[in-house]
Amino acid sequence: MSYVHPYQDAEFVLRHIVGFDALCTDAGLDEVNTDLAVAILDEAGKMGTEVLAPLNRVGDANPAKLGGSGVEQSPGFKEAYSQFAEAGWLSLTVREEFGGQNLPNVLGTAVNEIWQSANLAYGLCPLLSQGAMESIAHHASAALQQAYLPKMATGEWTGTMNLTEPDAGSDLAAVKTRAIAEGDHYRISGQKIFITWGDHQMTPNIVHLVLARLPDAPAGVKGISLFIVPKFMLDENGEPGERNAVQCLSLEHKLGIHGSPTCVMEFDQAVGYLVGEANKGLSYMFTMMNHARQSVGLQGLAIAERAYQQARQYAKERLQGTRRDGSRIPIIQHPDVRRMLLTMKACIEAMRALAFTASAEIDRARYAQDATQKALHAARVELLTPIVKGWLTEMSQELTSLGIQVHGGMGYVEETGAAQHYRDARILTIYEGTTGIQALDFIGRKTLADQGAALLALLQEMDQVADELREITYPDQHVCKGFENALGMGVEAREWVLSHAADDAHFAGSASVNFLMLFGYLCGGWLLVSGALQAKAMLDTGAGDTDFLQAKLLSARFYCEHVLPRTGACLAALKAGSSSIMAMSEDQF
Amino acid sequence: MSYVHPYQDAEFVLRHIVGFDALCTDAGLDEVNTDLAVAILDEAGKMGTEVLAPLNRVGDANPAKLGGSGVEQSPGFKEAYSQFAEAGWLSLTVREEFGGQNLPNVLGTAVNEIWQSANLAYGLCPLLSQGAMESIAHHASAALQQAYLPKMATGEWTGTMNLTEPDAGSDLAAVKTRAIAEGDHYRISGQKIFITWGDHQMTPNIVHLVLARLPDAPAGVKGISLFIVPKFMLDENGEPGERNAVQCLSLEHKLGIHGSPTCVMEFDQAVGYLVGEANKGLSYMFTMMNHARQSVGLQGLAIAERAYQQARQYAKERLQGTRRDGSRIPIIQHPDVRRMLLTMKACIEAMRALAFTASAEIDRARYAQDATQKALHAARVELLTPIVKGWLTEMSQELTSLGIQVHGGMGYVEETGAAQHYRDARILTIYEGTTGIQALDFIGRKTLADQGAALLALLQEMDQVADELREITYPDQHVCKGFENALGMGVEAREWVLSHAADDAHFAGSASVNFLMLFGYLCGGWLLVSGALQAKAMLDTGAGDTDFLQAKLLSARFYCEHVLPRTGACLAALKAGSSSIMAMSEDQF
Repeated sequence: MSYVHPYQDAEFVLRHIVGFDALCTDAGLDEVNTDLAVAILDEAGKMGTEVLAPLNRVGDANPAKLGGSGVEQSPGFKEAYSQFAEAGWLSLTVREEFGGQNLPNVLGTAVNEIWQSANLAYGLCPLLSQGAMESIAHHASAALQQAYLPKMATGEWTGTMNLTEPDAGSDLAAVKTRAIAEGDHYRISGQKIFITWGDHQMTPNIVHLVLARLPDAPAGVKGISLFIVPKFMLDENGEPGERNAVQCLSLEHKLGIHGSPTCVMEFDQAVGYLVGEANKGLSYMFTMMNHARQSVGLQGLAIAERAYQQARQYAKERLQGTRRDGSRIPIIQHPDVRRMLLTMKACIEAMRALAFTASAEIDRARYAQDATQKALHAARVELLTPIVKGWLTEMSQELTSLGIQVHGGMGYVEETGAAQHYRDARILTIYEGTTGIQALDFIGRKTLADQGAALLALLQEMDQVADELREITYPDQHVCKGFENALGMGVEAREWVLSHAADDAHFAGSASVNFLMLFGYLCGGWLLVSGALQAKAMLDTGAGDTDFLQAKLLSARFYCEHVLPRTGACLAALKAGSSSIMAMSEDQF
Repeated sequence: MSYVHPYQDAEFVLRHIVGFDALCTDAGLDEVNTDLAVAILDEAGKMGTEVLAPLNRVGDANPAKLGGSGVEQSPGFKEAYSQFAEAGWLSLTVREEFGGQNLPNVLGTAVNEIWQSANLAYGLCPLLSQGAMESIAHHASAALQQAYLPKMATGEWTGTMNLTEPDAGSDLAAVKTRAIAEGDHYRISGQKIFITWGDHQMTPNIVHLVLARLPDAPAGVKGISLFIVPKFMLDENGEPGERNAVQCLSLEHKLGIHGSPTCVMEFDQAVGYLVGEANKGLSYMFTMMNHARQSVGLQGLAIAERAYQQARQYAKERLQGTRRDGSRIPIIQHPDVRRMLLTMKACIEAMRALAFTASAEIDRARYAQDATQKALHAARVELLTPIVKGWLTEMSQELTSLGIQVHGGMGYVEETGAAQHYRDARILTIYEGTTGIQALDFIGRKTLADQGAALLALLQEMDQVADELREITYPDQHVCKGFENALGMGVEAREWVLSHAADDAHFAGSASVNFLMLFGYLCGGWLLVSGALQAKAMLDTGAGDTDFLQAKLLSARFYCEHVLPRTGACLAALKAGSSSIMAMSEDQF
């Protein structure tokens, strides 16, 4: 099934929900605006549809393999990567000094959606490169930046992130990889696992970012440093020279994303260069963590969109049931099939609105002139990031599953393609921090740590939308009541968490995922309702595409009716606290 | 990961929730009781653990293949099947006149859980044989019964169900396979798809039950007849003789259950024998549909139990995080991991209680002496069957997904095995009627058709449990309030459906899945709370295993806190009715 970028919704979100034009003006990016963004998305859409999407099933059926000289990527991926890099897609948001185009982060996000929808396994490669560039741009010395960033921005080299070890997954304090100083560089030794695109033959070099421990480092997370370890060391011209002592030992045999090699990497006295200061590696990872986690959340949106497009087409073509006149009925006319498709459509629109909104906050924090504004936007980034990562990826499980369900028995047959989306999506709630880790971050560092201040500010913004609904006498009471109820749940949840976490060490961990999911649903509702208000205003003045705008009203309504009530179940569960969760002994499980 | 049957919970459900001893006494099966059941389950558990479970991954990694002389099953399956058949496991519930042991259906269900947990792909073969035997035993002539049933009861031959065709999936009215009379038999021609265990080399014969149309048959479902089509026609001694004109053309390449061959079957003038009367095939299928649908629901329980056992073991062994004394923490001590495991455990116990209860109603309907009682139990079977099929299989998606999530990154690696359960489970909401079909059955034939009478009777029984909670001043208010709230949702949902379906042709289809899921959650709560009342009574008198019984109280509490509140979300969604669902045009999707 082919993929076509849903440009109309992306444009709507950028223009009317994110306020992209104002964002660019405020940032002093005078030549950038929504019209330019749409033109760029149009080009990216072609690349996605024509080059990357056709390779999606190819990668699934022909996984990357480990050969004599390293990992051999799936057929066609190298050629696609070359076209992709030559078109400049890797440098979109990179600063001009490193050869980039310095476009806003949110535009990069909108474009990334396309790569991840078209081919999630492939899309991980540029996604990881972006993360690596981010870390280097923020923390490495000018010399390292000049040596590595321009080649990464053109896509000539790719980047990887090497964090996980067999005993250090969610718990990075347990990292054991060692780094020993030797002149101007270090020797890195250890084994890393689950390294995405850790090796391949698509580019002449690969830039590994590696967490390791110096001999005199303090124990735990305060003793982790970050190193650049190139696959090939650079010669005097800055070109790949001698092979470094890093290699892929084996590849994982995974449920999905077969086109993305997941490597066990062995560093055996490999030459590495310290990024920034010693023992600050984890905080450097966190710098780019917001970016990486939002990107994985975006993958949840992207794979759900792909699954939706496929299910929608099938539902329009597949006939089951017969009318009185003998003609057969496309299943999209059956109410329960519509319910499934609408769940997909409405949630996807909510997810897109949230992903773009959170991403735009990164731009606003960067470009804000005023320190207070900067701090507010930075706090919003921190607050929304675990929701984007946690909620969007959890939703992608449900939505890709509905994608199979719409197909009936054909959905279970691999050649149909619906099952691949379901398998590919399953990693998203796990990597870059599981949902449990996101939820702990959200309830702990993002809520309890500031006594709920950032969350209160968000709830107040939502309350303005609720006010607006009342003021304009929004015609649909399902929307008004549904949103108001859910907002009340959010307010109550925040207060409950603030007042119960101090007395009970297990409360936060017990309530965290329900707390995160509640705010995921609510944020989605907030932005869909905001969009519906915009769409209604446009319909009232006769502006825009009537069919599209009315569909926005219907999505918002369906979401308020069918999805927002889940906030009540989340609230009840989080209020149950920790006592039943902690009461059972290990043997009683 | 090995599998061990959770005999203690199975015994608890049989003895204290189903009331197996009383059931057997009422049925006049004086030699059968819970002690005997436990002894049988113990034997079955050994077969499951030692013979079937070790082949689970073998079948996944080595799918059935189509060779020159038909389908070749996965390695080891034939030997396992022989042991299984020789031990008499196929004849457990078959009547004595056909060589069976005539044990209660619910005991067959308890035993079937073991096969389906141990090896879902394998377990489909006896499951289909049971369904075929059921149809033959109820509807075929004495001559056909004598010719086929004894050999099927010993497991010497297997049985299949041939319903689906490329254009006839959920909509069996569209069946096109033709049957033309020829002397004492018929000639069957047509293609059937998605035929589970349609061919294999495990037995010298296979008995296909096939839906087909006679030349003069009325259009639609009233023109479908049921035929027996043996793979090998029987010779004068009743042994397999000449090869019949039925063969497997190809196998599906599926997401899961790789060990179960899913066949495209070609019937080319194959010799067939009419079962019962012409044109009544669909009603004959429905006779065994309750059995088959409950069995698929049971598969949902079984695969969730298997996934739970694996996740639990991993959570006890995997260390992440460090205590102040430097020792590392098994992840089962982290609250969110406990939350996931408890969700699995509590839901599985609810699912088991519901599966056994519904299955026991088949026995009660069969053995009831009094016509009123018989009718009541028969109505309860009809009512609970779509809930068992729909809700248990939907839950199995969530629970096998949690099984992966508990494993973190290792869950995504195929060798771990968690992913196989997730893939295997995904068919369960589709085959034997999708969740949408179950929900239409539940809201239509099972609720609206009798003006909600059967459902009211069920709600009244639940209300007795709520009364009992109040009367004994049950110590846990979370249980009392949680169950009472959910019961209120059920009462309101029933009334809403009865009062809104008549005015709106699309209401039932729009509300159906939420209606079914609400009652699934509620039935699970009803039976867990009933069990908790029993457990509390036993604890009060000091009877039984204290650890186990206290765990039952905790499961019930967790379920009331964390799972039952979802009924509110279901109710809100069903009350939204059809207007947003039907409003969007096809082009607006």
